[in-house]
Amino acid sequence: MKIYFKELLLRTQQRRELIDITLDVEKVVRESSISNGLCLIFVPHATAAIVLNEHERGLLNDIMRKISEMYPDNGGWDHNRIDDNAAAHLASTFIGPATFMPVKEGKLIRGTWQNIFLVELDGPRPTRKVVVEVIGE
Amino acid sequence: MKIYFKELLLRTQQRRELIDITLDVEKVVRESSISNGLCLIFVPHATAAIVLNEHERGLLNDIMRKISEMYPDNGGWDHNRIDDNAAAHLASTFIGPATFMPVKEGKLIRGTWQNIFLVELDGPRPTRKVVVEVIGE
Amino acid sequence: MKIYFKELLLRTQQRRELIDITLDVEKVVRESSISNGLCLIFVPHATAAIVLNEHERGLLNDIMRKISEMYPDNGGWDHNRIDDNAAAHLASTFIGPATFMPVKEGKLIRGTWQNIFLVELDGPRPTRKVVVEVIGE
Repeated sequence: MKIYFKELLLRTQQRRELIDITLDVEKVVRESSISNGLCLIFVPHATAAIVLNEHERGLLNDIMRKISEMYPDNGGWDHNRIDDNAAAHLASTFIGPATFMPVKEGKLIRGTWQNIFLVELDGPRPTRKVVVEVIGE
Repeated sequence: MKIYFKELLLRTQQRRELIDITLDVEKVVRESSISNGLCLIFVPHATAAIVLNEHERGLLNDIMRKISEMYPDNGGWDHNRIDDNAAAHLASTFIGPATFMPVKEGKLIRGTWQNIFLVELDGPRPTRKVVVEVIGE
Repeated sequence: MKIYFKELLLRTQQRRELIDITLDVEKVVRESSISNGLCLIFVPHATAAIVLNEHERGLLNDIMRKISEMYPDNGGWDHNRIDDNAAAHLASTFIGPATFMPVKEGKLIRGTWQNIFLVELDGPRPTRKVVVEVIGE
């Protein structure tokens, strides 16, 4: 059994943003030299998330619009009395900070239109971490 | 360490549909001969998803109704200028294409009312894939 | 390869409730003596869920409020003709019953503000189970 960890460090530029990390994750899978197993993608943050979907400009706009509508800044949230980012915490809670993809014959199994995105919900931030872990043999 | 892959191929019949794949996944777990570990369930598609819940006709209606209401076809989505299926992509993004269940003593750990469903969001399609991967020993 | 299972048993007190299980999960990771791998957290229930986020009283209120608004009891759900808990099943379906965290050098990788919660959606219940599984070496 082999286990390979890599921490991706990303600078975010906007309040809310989708950053395509597919190539970075695929590079980690190659570096791991693991042929069969799984690849875990996890953000150790409570105001960010991970999603998989198509990298098409219009769709990225739609995803960001949907997040803003579902988790509006001015929702009268209790957490805003402490820190002005309740919407970011709520979106992170419900979208989720983790996903995985199978690894087979040295490659991620993923659909043609299935890219991997870090979802920044409370940026900009100088350093966001994404933990990529490959487990297998 | 053992790793066992199986690709389920499913034909979908409707635009939006829930297909119960519990028995298929349990069969894969038996075939794997893995006693303890985990079972990954992953759709390599950007307009489908995986959920776990009760197989009761009324609840399946409720799930499909909720998806239609949260991700309406006529939402004025940017992605519809490219391809007329933004609602399907959005639902897939937020519901998610992956889940897992623990495997113990050769069986999936699952609740009495916890069946596994492929969520078709942009059908009908002649071939939808579900990757089932069992890892353990 | 080592695999370690532990079933947490929890009594819930309210209809809808967030119960912080971070310390319990960290204890399981220590007991497992696994240095590197992953920790799976899974509820075998169709009316409960798992989320990760900050343990701040106002935010917990916001999360519960958002769940009630997205999945209202009186939503005219078909499943309520069978059993009066469609809202709980819907919330469990879309929030999801499973997540994982990486384990490195004997510890969960988690953000400073990233606690682990069981989400009770149809309580109170005398016994809710959370399956914690640690896999690695």
